[in-house]
Amino acid sequence: MLSRKYVETFFEKDIARHIPHLSVDCVIFGFHGADLKVLLLKWKGLDLWALPGGYVARRESLDAAAQKVLLERTGLRRVHLRQFHAFGGLSRREGSARQLFARVGIKVPDDAWPLHRVVSIGYYALVDYWKVRPGHDFLSDSCMWCSTDDLPPLAFDHRDVVRVALRTLRENLASPVIEATLLPERFTMPELQRLHEAILGRRLDRRNFQKRMLESGILERLPERRTGGAHRAAYLYRFKTSRASLVN
Amino acid sequence: MLSRKYVETFFEKDIARHIPHLSVDCVIFGFHGADLKVLLLKWKGLDLWALPGGYVARRESLDAAAQKVLLERTGLRRVHLRQFHAFGGLSRREGSARQLFARVGIKVPDDAWPLHRVVSIGYYALVDYWKVRPGHDFLSDSCMWCSTDDLPPLAFDHRDVVRVALRTLRENLASPVIEATLLPERFTMPELQRLHEAILGRRLDRRNFQKRMLESGILERLPERRTGGAHRAAYLYRFKTSRASLVN
Repeated sequence: MLSRKYVETFFEKDIARHIPHLSVDCVIFGFHGADLKVLLLKWKGLDLWALPGGYVARRESLDAAAQKVLLERTGLRRVHLRQFHAFGGLSRREGSARQLFARVGIKVPDDAWPLHRVVSIGYYALVDYWKVRPGHDFLSDSCMWCSTDDLPPLAFDHRDVVRVALRTLRENLASPVIEATLLPERFTMPELQRLHEAILGRRLDRRNFQKRMLESGILERLPERRTGGAHRAAYLYRFKTSRASLVN
Repeated sequence: MLSRKYVETFFEKDIARHIPHLSVDCVIFGFHGADLKVLLLKWKGLDLWALPGGYVARRESLDAAAQKVLLERTGLRRVHLRQFHAFGGLSRREGSARQLFARVGIKVPDDAWPLHRVVSIGYYALVDYWKVRPGHDFLSDSCMWCSTDDLPPLAFDHRDVVRVALRTLRENLASPVIEATLLPERFTMPELQRLHEAILGRRLDRRNFQKRMLESGILERLPERRTGGAHRAAYLYRFKTSRASLVN
């Protein structure tokens, strides 16, 4: 995990072991209640949040760099992680990085490339909300789940990064990997519908949705039902394809 | 266009004006006959072909760098160009670049980054086959259309780059932008079917295909028919949405 020592050593000498002007950023999605959420870090002493990310070592593939970020932030190893877009605008980071390092009292040479243009490769991860123990670090006050419907002020172009990740999820909604990784192993039809609604950002007709899902043939209805709550016991379902076969 | 002078000057001094270890590569698709084709450059004096690509200037966005490559190679300005994946494997370029520069007699310092690891942002472009005048340059013997079914030996990881671009096309086949940019303004139903077959890599049932296309409501049947050939005159269609509104 990022300590003051780690950051100081990075700028003193480790920077040379990294590919300059390149980073990875991870949009880590979890589903909770009826909300699609992303994991964000609050920058220390600033009202600014950011996606977890990191630089890429010269002897490290892009995928490995993203997996490292994910492991550090969530403690999870085998998760569905996909590259979705490279962000290479000219002014995507502006002065924000400089502001953060000044705030935490780290001296960074003016010509250090992290203060200048950085191209970031965006990855999205689909994780089980309940299995994640968010952890903050030296550069952040906290790390927490925020609803995609109601994001706090984001650093850099990270609002745009989240928007493009969400669009990619929408485009891939036909593939069961998304539901299978964001839902628990066994779920009810209303839970599945709420996930679709959260990703699509709009309400769906209950009967049409149920019909379409059952006809798709990807679901298996389990013998037991979910009891408890005010409503009548709901059928439980699971995906015919096992979750393990869908993850990476 | 790339001349000997341009390449020499690049390694002498222009290299510093570029983001190190970063490039763009373009998979330029055209449709001809029943074949989906890509534009490839044959490396001078070597039996090795490569996708058109280039490095990214420090004051140039990724999209602008890809557009520049496309303009140089096809002469076309307003084309459908989309980023689809960043290729960042550790050994994706191996010794190939060194071999090419040696072959054309350009001295490149051993520590110059183009001889080492380069992360490449892949773009695909959909162009009108008939509007392209392929042009080669100082580093290549020729520039020509090759069928995606029968690719020559490719440099770097470019076979993989083409494969991922093709998979992205398949995933996006539901969107009319692909047909609208690869087909001429007016086309017959068999032409549309052959394009789908070329992208999907499999034959489709004629009647089902026609039914599905007509029901989708995206096509407009024109009053005139295509005459000539052994068969009875075929209906001509066009997309209801204008091509211009679909391009970029």
